[in-house]
Formats: sequence, structure tokens, C-alpha cells
Amino acid sequence: MTSKGRVKVGIIGSQFEGDIHAASIGMVPDAAEVVAVASPTPGNAQKLADRYGIKRIFTDYKKMLAEKDIEMVTITAPNNLHAQMTVDIAEAGKHVVCEKPLCMTLEEADMMIETCRKKGVLLMYAEELFFTPKYVKAKEMADQGAFGKVYLVKQAEKHFGPHAPWFWDVDKSGGGVFMDMGCHGIAFCYWFLGRPKIKNVFCQMGIYAHADKTKGEDNSICIIEFENDAVGLIEDSWARRGGMEDRIEVYGDGGVTYADLHMGNALPTYSETGYGYAVEKAPSTKGWTWPVFEELWNYGFPQEMRHFARCVRGKEEPQATGEDGRVVQEVLYAGYHSARTGHKVELPYVSPVAGTGYGAYYLTVDDDLLQFCQVVLVKGIPEP
Amino acid sequence: MTSKGRVKVGIIGSQFEGDIHAASIGMVPDAAEVVAVASPTPGNAQKLADRYGIKRIFTDYKKMLAEKDIEMVTITAPNNLHAQMTVDIAEAGKHVVCEKPLCMTLEEADMMIETCRKKGVLLMYAEELFFTPKYVKAKEMADQGAFGKVYLVKQAEKHFGPHAPWFWDVDKSGGGVFMDMGCHGIAFCYWFLGRPKIKNVFCQMGIYAHADKTKGEDNSICIIEFENDAVGLIEDSWARRGGMEDRIEVYGDGGVTYADLHMGNALPTYSETGYGYAVEKAPSTKGWTWPVFEELWNYGFPQEMRHFARCVRGKEEPQATGEDGRVVQEVLYAGYHSARTGHKVELPYVSPVAGTGYGAYYLTVDDDLLQFCQVVLVKGIPEP
Amino acid sequence: MTSKGRVKVGIIGSQFEGDIHAASIGMVPDAAEVVAVASPTPGNAQKLADRYGIKRIFTDYKKMLAEKDIEMVTITAPNNLHAQMTVDIAEAGKHVVCEKPLCMTLEEADMMIETCRKKGVLLMYAEELFFTPKYVKAKEMADQGAFGKVYLVKQAEKHFGPHAPWFWDVDKSGGGVFMDMGCHGIAFCYWFLGRPKIKNVFCQMGIYAHADKTKGEDNSICIIEFENDAVGLIEDSWARRGGMEDRIEVYGDGGVTYADLHMGNALPTYSETGYGYAVEKAPSTKGWTWPVFEELWNYGFPQEMRHFARCVRGKEEPQATGEDGRVVQEVLYAGYHSARTGHKVELPYVSPVAGTGYGAYYLTVDDDLLQFCQVVLVKGIPEP
Amino acid sequence: MTSKGRVKVGIIGSQFEGDIHAASIGMVPDAAEVVAVASPTPGNAQKLADRYGIKRIFTDYKKMLAEKDIEMVTITAPNNLHAQMTVDIAEAGKHVVCEKPLCMTLEEADMMIETCRKKGVLLMYAEELFFTPKYVKAKEMADQGAFGKVYLVKQAEKHFGPHAPWFWDVDKSGGGVFMDMGCHGIAFCYWFLGRPKIKNVFCQMGIYAHADKTKGEDNSICIIEFENDAVGLIEDSWARRGGMEDRIEVYGDGGVTYADLHMGNALPTYSETGYGYAVEKAPSTKGWTWPVFEELWNYGFPQEMRHFARCVRGKEEPQATGEDGRVVQEVLYAGYHSARTGHKVELPYVSPVAGTGYGAYYLTVDDDLLQFCQVVLVKGIPEP
Repeated sequence: MTSKGRVKVGIIGSQFEGDIHAASIGMVPDAAEVVAVASPTPGNAQKLADRYGIKRIFTDYKKMLAEKDIEMVTITAPNNLHAQMTVDIAEAGKHVVCEKPLCMTLEEADMMIETCRKKGVLLMYAEELFFTPKYVKAKEMADQGAFGKVYLVKQAEKHFGPHAPWFWDVDKSGGGVFMDMGCHGIAFCYWFLGRPKIKNVFCQMGIYAHADKTKGEDNSICIIEFENDAVGLIEDSWARRGGMEDRIEVYGDGGVTYADLHMGNALPTYSETGYGYAVEKAPSTKGWTWPVFEELWNYGFPQEMRHFARCVRGKEEPQATGEDGRVVQEVLYAGYHSARTGHKVELPYVSPVAGTGYGAYYLTVDDDLLQFCQVVLVKGIPEP
Repeated sequence: MTSKGRVKVGIIGSQFEGDIHAASIGMVPDAAEVVAVASPTPGNAQKLADRYGIKRIFTDYKKMLAEKDIEMVTITAPNNLHAQMTVDIAEAGKHVVCEKPLCMTLEEADMMIETCRKKGVLLMYAEELFFTPKYVKAKEMADQGAFGKVYLVKQAEKHFGPHAPWFWDVDKSGGGVFMDMGCHGIAFCYWFLGRPKIKNVFCQMGIYAHADKTKGEDNSICIIEFENDAVGLIEDSWARRGGMEDRIEVYGDGGVTYADLHMGNALPTYSETGYGYAVEKAPSTKGWTWPVFEELWNYGFPQEMRHFARCVRGKEEPQATGEDGRVVQEVLYAGYHSARTGHKVELPYVSPVAGTGYGAYYLTVDDDLLQFCQVVLVKGIPEP
Repeated sequence: MTSKGRVKVGIIGSQFEGDIHAASIGMVPDAAEVVAVASPTPGNAQKLADRYGIKRIFTDYKKMLAEKDIEMVTITAPNNLHAQMTVDIAEAGKHVVCEKPLCMTLEEADMMIETCRKKGVLLMYAEELFFTPKYVKAKEMADQGAFGKVYLVKQAEKHFGPHAPWFWDVDKSGGGVFMDMGCHGIAFCYWFLGRPKIKNVFCQMGIYAHADKTKGEDNSICIIEFENDAVGLIEDSWARRGGMEDRIEVYGDGGVTYADLHMGNALPTYSETGYGYAVEKAPSTKGWTWPVFEELWNYGFPQEMRHFARCVRGKEEPQATGEDGRVVQEVLYAGYHSARTGHKVELPYVSPVAGTGYGAYYLTVDDDLLQFCQVVLVKGIPEP
Repeated sequence: MTSKGRVKVGIIGSQFEGDIHAASIGMVPDAAEVVAVASPTPGNAQKLADRYGIKRIFTDYKKMLAEKDIEMVTITAPNNLHAQMTVDIAEAGKHVVCEKPLCMTLEEADMMIETCRKKGVLLMYAEELFFTPKYVKAKEMADQGAFGKVYLVKQAEKHFGPHAPWFWDVDKSGGGVFMDMGCHGIAFCYWFLGRPKIKNVFCQMGIYAHADKTKGEDNSICIIEFENDAVGLIEDSWARRGGMEDRIEVYGDGGVTYADLHMGNALPTYSETGYGYAVEKAPSTKGWTWPVFEELWNYGFPQEMRHFARCVRGKEEPQATGEDGRVVQEVLYAGYHSARTGHKVELPYVSPVAGTGYGAYYLTVDDDLLQFCQVVLVKGIPEP
């Protein structure tokens, strides 16, 4: 691999997230370029390649990994494939960018981290909120002491349901909106506060709008207590009408700030006839709407991809790592456990059921297990 | 008592809330007039009387109760006096308006309700959020079906600490910000949703900004699950800088609305020199500020007082009752219990310690009690 | 007439404005009550009377004027009837509240003022912006010095066209949106700045959205220079989509404030199904909308009516007078003149065409007249 | 010159705008790089070079023009030097990026355009509002028909006074805030509407806050009528407290949109202690503030510089040209003429005083000239 020039990137996946990766890398041509895309469904990789002028296409990602010049591979495939793909990419000696959530179990997370470490490649976790410019400004102010000691950080992400139908199937998605989008809020609070150790997690969730479609929760509230005595409050919803919502609030004993990526950034607009595009998930472009501008930039995707490419070149240190992804997974599992039992769950989290996939815990729990959980919680978390 | 004309009102108390009552009743002169005020500290009643042209003043409220023409008495005295005052007023055959929180224990609440019932007078609970016009509009829209089935109602009230110094002393106040302001949010969610039965309560709270001043919590988060499957999320703070904040959010499977009484109503204003008055708790009138207009009207105090007076005249049915106040108290005690134990607490709530004042529970709990609570919770709530 | 008790009010007119008067007076029952309504179209007065419980109805307003107990009469009839009605009311010895615009010519204004003066009755001009609470707060801050010396005041009122079809017919309305709503902005700037003498007026206007319906302008921009060196910038439109807009901005060398009665006060709301009522002129209650609350109160109509009633009782001095209305008319005519000629027009304004109704000036001007006007303007305004 | 690779750029000037150019080009490293900077004051070029890692520095810009590899030169020097520098750059065979305003007279503008044409180099006018992403989104929606026929476009830019002291001296700056910032609004409306011919201009201006410092106007209002019947309303101020303001409003017969680069994009923030940086011209970072994020990107400077570099490579057509700059100058002069005379001024604009620098017109006009102007205007604009 060379130490100069654009980082050559291969993308695994060609759908919603694959498109975002290709578009975002296209916006930072000084840092990286997409040279290949792999997607198992015949024709899909070609469509993405056509949109973005990508030269090489593959149906088998392993063949893409054999391309010598590719230095970094981004994973936008379904969650249950993340772990194996990461191992394969690392073994091919290429750097890994893995979409959220990192994987399906904490054991998978440990294996991914360890394999990349051994192979000497970077495992980068694609949490774009670490690069969202409005949120980055909030963190800068916090780090400059603007808010004194920060005691409460809130993040909310809400819309009326996921892009792809498979999200509704908990057997495929491993959960509902908390699994799908809670990962962002968990990562955000953890990062914003400077990665303090997490003490415990409390969650409330339910199915409110989409019981006809899914067994997964479509609204969740999550409270995290950190060891530095700060609190995270994370709200996620697939049941919020009116388009996308992504907001934070930061409270310190010396100040407060609010950031809203949508209503707080957009152009309040009324149109009788409608227009091209308002925002992700917008129900209409007629009547009053909240169109966004430079959507990818305002989410921070291009900035994120530039950062990852610069990490590959050794110019920056990764700001979003496999370890971060593992923390998120741990809180997700503890959160589901909490929602099921009605208790605050202490971390480190250990599944009460040995040999069970953690992600599926919430959905498979039965009354015996519940009984067991309560006993476990009162007595304290057993060691593995 | 006459069935016509202005309702003649006596006020017990002359400080912050007493002033609000006098001013608010002055804004609805068609419905009521303040004819007397009682305050034990010599001179205090006189000051209020001077400001509002009130004719009769008393240091002993019981003497005020002997005035024949007074039909309604409002209580703005410290919380621990509410129960006895209510009984005295009722026994004098006058209608009662009691400020929040209703009382100190559920037994007191039961006694207040029962005494008023027996004496044939109204026990009205002064929860002004039921009359806040912006929130009333939100409820009207909800009741018209604007949001489909409402599954989440949020209310937040935040500022940087209470008006009077005695609030910091938990022995006098019975708690911190959750006791002081959480009562509003609990009442609001309950009322907004149509008074569904409450299933359980989870609370997180702590001392973040004022550990030098108080043992009471200065920030709290409360989650309520209702039997109609809706959820209430209530946030309160004495640690929020920048002036008063009072907001709601309503989420249904068919829509959403947001209402903010301060930043969302005010005139964004910049002044080099400052000016008369911005808003309750505003740290300054210089620089950027958010001045409110017709503050009492926008909170709903005059509307509330007009309603209470019309109830006395039989023209309206009380919308905020002693029973509502009792529900609020129950959730407050369950909330403190939950914050202490880290568990969701099921309702109806029964204190684990017989003969203990519920309000003081949070503050007096020791390790033995905690142990006891956990056992109790796992086994279920014992009958008294 | 009595010096105590509610002021007894008769309303002339039963449509949009008549309804507002009846509703507003109903909100201040301590100060006034509507006892009669007169409307020439059979049945119309009855409908209004039914909605508000008004006892006496008339088709001939002159018969209503014969009712001895009526003390104040409000005029909500078409503009060309204002002068005669005012004279008739004054001659009946009753106080006059006249809706905007005051009349059709400056001679009419002079006669109305003089007649009321002679008869010893009050001529009150129903400019509700003097009572709009959010705007009153802005003025209070200005008067407290919050903005230093105020050099620019802006007011805008915009929607997509008038309530009643006759507004589209310039022969009936005497003009377009500048005549219909510009009167508010002119009055507002004049009042806000403390009624300084007006130096000159510049106007730009045109027909942009409704050329199929009207010969009157549907968008206007008006700049007023005052003798205290402040400037007024007034924008009005019948061509603004999306509902009602009413906003002010105040700029001083020491500060600035913004007030928006609609988007800045409302609850941002999304509804799939719609709901009862959002705001005057709202095109829909589905999708995103900006519903207002306590609409009349936030416009200031009840406060205005209470003020007028208290003036009748001698408890307040009229804050909105016939003289104010005359100033507004003068600026309106000068504004039309300016829009036609492209020149700033100096005040006092004298019509260049003797014997012409001023209100009709804009619409009847021909090329010869234009030529004449230009000469006049370069040479200075001729004396009458 | 090569047809590939980064465009090599030299900057003339090292102060406020020079820094923006260097920073913005640094944000689009795929398209361009700054290789040299020239500034006559010894040491200034070095400081800029140190901040941005620029290798070559010059005190004489003509020596910089001798550098063979430089392909594009940006001018950030005082306005009165723009014309000569443009000629020098063009004669050196390099492309020109000229900051606003383009020059001092229309003759200069004509010469600049003609020289660049003859020499086969691009003359690009640095109007960043054509690239401001929020405004670009508004224009995209307009071009998609979202607002039907647009009849009114507004732009406002306001703060409390310029960066550099020489702006206060009208002999150096050629005018006040209308000259300094009105150029943006004129260009914006013209561009937004698709460059329709301009019919006439009306201006009102005065000195309101800074009479102690300047003879130039510190507040201006400008109305432009276009041949497509649309209107531009442009407001500029050096007398607006509270930090920077940059806003647009777009009204069409089918819809409306609002965009605010500051209060409408920022994070509402309260800080007791302050923090690093809020926004250009912010008076403080304490109390309530409106901090911006990715400030250059949200203004559009990097996007502008990338566009100019791509134009040099032939990949895009210039969107902001010398001809655009000339239109702006013409409106500026007509605007000053209008403000002086109180008349709408028709375009094309011809100075009434042969041989006079147009930019100085407003300031040198005397009574004789005024008399002359009025005659001219009544008779129509004479041909040159």
C-alpha cells in the first residue's frame, strides 16, 4: 500500500447505506475514491456503479478482497454478516469500515476487534454522529467549558419506520427501533461525555403504531448513568409522523445548548405543487415542509469518510472504533434486558442465558427466564 | 351564599403564589374578586393587600374563615399545612382551592377529599397546566383526533432553582425538583391522556448543580406507563441555566405536536442596556433574551381562577380536583421509591414502611430499608 | 348614562368583523356587554345574536341608535358607510368605535372627528395592533430603552386574499391589499414610535397572483420616513400562501427584537387526519401546520374592547383615536400616489386633483394626470 | 497550463477576505491549492502563509504574476485597485477571481470584462451567495416550481459595522453599508430570479447609529423592479446589534420559503462562562448566543472556490461573472441616486454628471446637481 494519494475503497452492499458511502466518498475526492462495489444480488452492484462511475463490480465480496490495490473496505451488508466480513477483510490485509450496529453478540465484537488488531488493520465504526457538524460544534463548546459540568445529554432520532422491509422482521433485524437507531444515541452520549465508564441502563419500550407489521418495539426511551455522574437520555421512534427528526440537548451546571438537524436547520417552506426533495422520510413536499440542504454534509457522512481515509494514511487517529461499537452493543443488550424486567441493569452486562445470542434475548425471553432475571438482578450480575 | 355576582375570595399566603392568585383573579373581575388575605408574618398580608387593593387582612387565617361573605379560599401556604387548612376551610363551609402539591401523605389526601365531600364544598386543585392556553390547544387537537392514538406525552419544566430558600431544605420541602415541579408533569400527562389508570413509574434523579445547597435532587427524569398503553416522560430540573423552560411534546400514530411556553412564544430580543422584565428566572435582560408577554395569561392562571369561580357558581364542573392531586402524590412517592431502588414501581403504591410519612421516604431510606424494598418489589407489593 | 357597570354596546354589522367584536366583548364581561346588533340583510343580525346571546336585533341601525341604554356603538359595515354612521351615532349621543380604514377621504375624516368632538362623544379607532400583547411587549421594551434609539420598525401582514368577495372589487374596496391591510402597518409604526410627524412616503405595489380577480394591488411595500429620523417598512400581501402571517421587527442602535404572531407563537404540528381549526386563512389542517391558541386574545381584540369600554367609563384615555385613523388615511393616499409616480411623496398630502375622492385616486389616474403629478412633485405640493 | 490536477492559486491580499480564500481553498484540496500570496505590507503575507502552509510570498503582486505555474489569482485588495489588478492578471494570462464590489465605475467594469475576454481568461466574480447551500436549496425549489411564479425575493444582511476601519471613510470605501453589503442582495435577487433585466431601483438610506464615525449610510432599504414583474427587496445594516444576520424570503403565487443563515441554523445556547467562537461579529459568547457550525461551508465559500477551480479546468461554466458584477454596480449607483432624489431610477443607469466617478456620486452631490437630477428624471434618462 502507498502512503500517499487517495485511499482506494471497496464497498460491500449497494442499497441505502451503500449509496450513502459512495456519495460521501465522492464528496471528498482528495481523500478517497470508490474503486469497487460488491453485492450478491445480480445487477445491484452495477446500478450503484453506474450512478457513481465505479469501475469494478463483484457479486462475491471475497473476490473483491483479492484486488490488490483496494486499501479500505466498507461494510453495508445486513448486521448478521458483519463479523464474518470483518474477519475476511482483515485477513485480506485491508482496513475495515463497519456500519452500525457492529455485530450480533459481544463475542462477535471481541473477535472482530482481536482479528483486526492481530492483522494490523484498522477497525473503524461508522457512527456518523461523531462527525455531524452541528453536534461537533456542541461538543467543542462543551469541551471549552461553555456548559460547566455537563450532567445530562439527550439525543433523539425519530421517523415513521425503516427504509427496508426486513427491518420489521425481528428475526432478521434482531430488534426494533432501539436496535436500529438507539445505537446512534448511545454512541453519541458516550462520545460527547468523553467515553466515561457506563454504570447502568434503564429502558422503556413498546409497540405503538406498527403492531400489524412487527414484533419489534417502535418506540423506546433509554436512560444511561455514567461513572462521571452524567446521564444520557435517548429516545428513538419508528412512530413519529412528519418526516425525520434528529436532535440533541446538552445541560451543564453552567449552560445549555440545543441542536436540531431538521426543523432547526431547514427552510420553513410552503408549496402548493410540491418540489423535488425535502428530507429523508418526508411524507410529502406539498403544504408546509422542512427541506434540508446539503443533507449528507449536515449529517457528517463525507467528513466521516474523509476521516477514515486519513486514518488509513496515518494522518488522524480513529475517532470511532470497534471498541466504541462494542460499548454500544453492550448497552443495547442491557437496555432490552431492562425493558423486559423493569429494572435498571448494571454494566458490565452478562446475558443471564449462556449460549444465547444476545440480540435475540428480548424476543425469546419467557416467563421462566424473566423469573430468573429478577433473581439475578437482585443478587447482582453473576460472573460468566 | 348567593348564586350570582362575583365570587368573593380569601387568599391564605402572601408570597410568590399568593401574588399570582391575586393578580390572576384581578384579571377576571367578572368572575371573582379577592376580598381578604391572611398571612401569619406581620406586615406581609398588608403588602399584598396594598398591591391589589384588598380590603381585609388577617394574620390568623381562621379569623378570615369567620367572614361570612367569603365563598372560596385559596391556599398558598407551605405544603405541610395544606391538609389542616383544607379541613378548616371546609368546616367553615367554604370552597377550597389548594396549591400543588396537594399534601404530604396519601392519608392526608384521602382525608381532605372526604372532608370536603362531607361538607358539600368543592376541593379544587390548582394545576394551572390544565388551563395553559397553548397546552389546551394541543389537547383540543388530540381530542379531535389530530394525532391518531397518542402513545407518548412529554412535559418538561426547568430552571436554575426555586424562588424561596426553604425549598432547598428537604425537611421543609419534602423533596427536590421532582416534588416541586414533577407534580406539574405528572398531572399534565394524566390529564392530557384522559385520566387513564397508571400502571407503573420509573424515575432517575440526582444532585448535579446544587450539592452545596441541598440534599434534594435537582434533576429528575420520570417515565409513567398508563393502562391505555401510552407513556408519559417527565423531565424537571433546578439545574438548567438561561431562564425558565416549560415544554410539551405529543406523539401519536397519526401526528405530532410541540409546544414551548418560553422560547417558542417569546420575542427573540437583543439589548445592550437591558429592560424591565424578561421572564421568570431570567438571569439578565441584557444580550439575547426571550421575553414573554402576558405571562400569567400564557400560563393560564387567570383562566384557571375564572374556572374555579364558575365552578363555585355551578356553571362549570371542576377540571382539577383533589382526586387529581392525590394521583399526583401517589406517582411522586412511587417515583422516589423507584429512583432509590432502580426498579419500575407498580401502582397502586404502598409505602414499604408502615407509619412513615411518604414524602420523606426518599430522604430517610437506609440500607436495611433498601434491602427490604428490593425483596418487596420482587415479591410484589404487599397489602397494607 | 351611568358611570358604573358594564358598558352596553350595539354592533353595526354581522359578518367577519362583527363576529370578532361580539366574541371579544364576550371575553371581557366585566367591562362591556353586547345588547344589540343591526344588519340590513334580513336574518344576518339574528344569526350573530343567536351565537352570542344578544337580545335585540335590528335591520335599520338608526332604530338601534334610538335605544336609550346603548352607550357605545361599533361600526363593522363597509368602508364607504363609516362617515355617515359615525355622524349618526354621535348625533344619537353614543360613543363610536369605528373599524379600519376610518373612511374614504380626508374630508370625511375631518368631519367625523369634528362631529364627535362637538357632540362630546368619543371617536375610537379599532386598530387592534395597539393591543396585540406580543407587540405591546415590544413597545414596552422599546420605551424602557432596551433598543436605544429605534431607527427602523417593520410590520408585515400577509395571506392569500380577503375574506369577503367585495374586497376584490376596487370600486367597493377603494384599493387592494395596501388599503385593506396596509392601514395596520402604518398605524403600528406610527404608534410604536410615539406618533412622530411623518415626513414622506414611498410605495411599490403590483398585481402578482390575482390578476384574474381584481384590479387592486395584491402585494405592496411601503417606506415611511418620520421626523424623528426613524423609518417604517410595511409589507402587505394577498399573495402569500400557507396561511396568515403577522410579524414585526424593531431595530435600534442599542438592540433589536422580533415578534411573529403565527409561526413564532404556534405549536408546530403534523397531522395525518387534520383537526378542527389551525388559524385564520390556513389552507388545511393536514400535514404540517401552525395552529394558534387563544387567537382573539393574541391579536388583542378583547383587550382592545375592554380599553374602549373603560374609556367610555372615563377610566382610561383613548389610545386609538379618529386622529390616528386620519393619519393612516393620509399615508394610504400618499402611498398610492407614490406607487403611481415612482416618487417619494411628502406629507401633508394633498390630492393633485381637486374634487376627487382620494381613495379612488390610484385606480382612475390616467396619463395626463400622471404627467401632471410629476410636475407637481418636482415643484412641490401645491396648497389647496 | 495543465488540464488536470489541482488548480494552482495565488491570492492578492492577506486580511479578512484573504484568509477566507485560503481557508476555503484548503477545504477543497481536490480542486485547488494556494501556492502563493502577495501583500504590500511587509510581514502580512508571511502571517497568512504560516497559517495555511503557503510556500511563496510576495510584497509586489506583479512579481507573483510572473510565476509560471500559477493559473488563477484571487483579488482581495481594496476596491479601488480591482480594475488595474484584473488587467495585470489577465495580461499575465491567468484567470481572475475578483472580490465584491467588482470595481469603482461602470467604465472600469467594461474594461475589466473586455480585457479578460481578449486575453482568453475567465473573469469570475466572488459572490458567495450563489453558493450558500441553504440559499441554493431555495433556488432549486423555486426552479422546480415549488412556489409557482416568484413575485418577491428578499435578502437582508445586517450587523453592527465592518471589520476594517477604512470602511468608515467614504473616500476609501466609496459608500456605506449599501456599497459594502447591498452588493450581495442585489446579486442574490438577480441570480435567484434567473437574471431578468432590471427596470428600476428605489432606495432609502440614512445614518442612524454611527454618525460619529462615518458619513456613509449605516442602514439601507432597496427595492428593485425586474422586467419579469418580480420585485427584489434588499435590506442592509451596520446598525443591527446582536451579531450577524443573513436571511432570505421567497414569495411566489404558489408558495413561500424562508432561510436564515444564523438564528435559523445555529444552536440556541446559553453559557455562563463563554466559549471559543460563536459567529462573525457576535458581541459575546456569554449568555444566550447563536453559534454557527462549519461557518465557511454554510456560507458557501469552499463550494465557490471549488466551482471557480473547476471552471478553470473547463468542467463547469462560470456562475458568477464580471457581467454579474457590472449589473450589481449599476444598481448600486442607481440606488444612491434614488436615495438622494427620492425617485425610482430607471435602468440602464447613466450618471447625470459626465466624467464623475459614479461611486462617489452620493457623497458629492450638491443642490445644483440635485436640481439637475430631478429634471433629468422627469424628462427620462438621456442617452450617453
